[in-house]
Amino acid sequence: MDKLLIKKADGTTEVFKEEKLRNSLKRSGATDKQIEEVVSHVTAEIHTDVTSDEVFKHAFEVLNKIGGSVAAKYSLRRAISQLGPSGFPFEQFMSRVFNELGYRSHSGVIVNGKCAEHEIDVVAENDQEVIFMELKFHNNFGLKSDMKVALYVQARHNDLKKNNFGHYADAGKKSEFWLVTNTKFTSNSIKYAKCAGLKMIGWSYPSKGNLQEIIESSGLQPITCLTTLTTDEKSYFLNKNIVLCKTLQEKEHLLIEAGLDKNRVENTLTEIKGLSDLG
Amino acid sequence: MDKLLIKKADGTTEVFKEEKLRNSLKRSGATDKQIEEVVSHVTAEIHTDVTSDEVFKHAFEVLNKIGGSVAAKYSLRRAISQLGPSGFPFEQFMSRVFNELGYRSHSGVIVNGKCAEHEIDVVAENDQEVIFMELKFHNNFGLKSDMKVALYVQARHNDLKKNNFGHYADAGKKSEFWLVTNTKFTSNSIKYAKCAGLKMIGWSYPSKGNLQEIIESSGLQPITCLTTLTTDEKSYFLNKNIVLCKTLQEKEHLLIEAGLDKNRVENTLTEIKGLSDLG
Repeated sequence: MDKLLIKKADGTTEVFKEEKLRNSLKRSGATDKQIEEVVSHVTAEIHTDVTSDEVFKHAFEVLNKIGGSVAAKYSLRRAISQLGPSGFPFEQFMSRVFNELGYRSHSGVIVNGKCAEHEIDVVAENDQEVIFMELKFHNNFGLKSDMKVALYVQARHNDLKKNNFGHYADAGKKSEFWLVTNTKFTSNSIKYAKCAGLKMIGWSYPSKGNLQEIIESSGLQPITCLTTLTTDEKSYFLNKNIVLCKTLQEKEHLLIEAGLDKNRVENTLTEIKGLSDLG
Repeated sequence: MDKLLIKKADGTTEVFKEEKLRNSLKRSGATDKQIEEVVSHVTAEIHTDVTSDEVFKHAFEVLNKIGGSVAAKYSLRRAISQLGPSGFPFEQFMSRVFNELGYRSHSGVIVNGKCAEHEIDVVAENDQEVIFMELKFHNNFGLKSDMKVALYVQARHNDLKKNNFGHYADAGKKSEFWLVTNTKFTSNSIKYAKCAGLKMIGWSYPSKGNLQEIIESSGLQPITCLTTLTTDEKSYFLNKNIVLCKTLQEKEHLLIEAGLDKNRVENTLTEIKGLSDLG
């Protein structure tokens, strides 16, 4: 195959790498046979100037035909960026993820620093540690969190540290402040954060303990990853603060209240079950 | 006179206070007689629900009839907010103001902090001190610089301080970092900045050494305060990086190049002379 240039979400171009597609499929739990099938379909049909979005959609369609649940998992990144338009559902989702990981977790907590009070998007606490999180949510995956974001979050971090994290850390627990985004960081902001001691977590960053690893280790899926619900139905649930597939599994009546018939309720529950078997 | 409610630029309402109008006219250099005349016209004709913009315009019109140069000075605040739409002319203007006050001054300077390089809007230096300025320009006077701005500027300040202000301060000069805006600050950001040690300068803030005092002490007026030029002519000059009345006074040919006839050139130069006599 000739070299193909594809457009990335941030507008830059890169050479299409089959290996990258293989890896992302593998990380999503696709079998070797499924990977071969998707890759051969996609590489046969893409052409130069296609966007990475289109490559994704194509791969997703093929995968969806041959193994629906794997496809849903493959689309986690996309599902997270569909939690918007506001950052609120992402806050709730991350708070639930940390609950599932064994933390007492709350969103939108007011905490006093030395010089100001701050609204902390998520505070997660267990007997050993307390993690304060500032979340930056973007609908558009091409938007990166830049230097100004890293700077103001670091100033907030410093102010909270000077008041012992609003006394959360008085008992001598390990205390951390994280800047978490569902997209990426600019290279300047990464350089700054490393030097200044600010922990940043984004999509695929850092290589260990990045956002998708944290989410996958909780085994929780946002409802936006379901292929059996329409966009309107997803919005309906998000507006009711229902962000997890697990909630729909536990409370089937919510699906009926949203107007799904018996057949579609079955299909949705089957898809959710497939996802959790993979988890 | 009954109590009148007027709308402020930020959307809130306040009781119209004659005293406030008197004071702003006085600060602009109006004589007692001029003040009486403006106040009696304005209070006779305003009504509830008028905006503070409309009160300003009305006062300006009356003042313009009875003492044109004072009116131009009265409109300084407005003139500054017309330096946009981008913040670039405001940077250039402030840089020139500090030159006039005896500093070597430059805009858009890249300076290395400990962890990152930063673009500093204005650096002003003399033999005793170096002042780094971050400028926040708003066209809309109702927009205030909030906590996030104060936080990121403070983080930038800290990073620069850790590298001795990019070695500008190595000679033992007094070194300061200012956040300067042509509008106001939220009360939370003021509280934070006072506690964190960040110097903030805005319109009417602080009571001594605020933005209009700094500008007035330089004796420089931006071309946007002239009543003898049209909006298009002002834009023409701003696009050519001509921000000062003084420049037009020194280089009359610029007025001719902008298409003004002999009569209008005269009028403009007369207005500028009136302004500098007041300065």
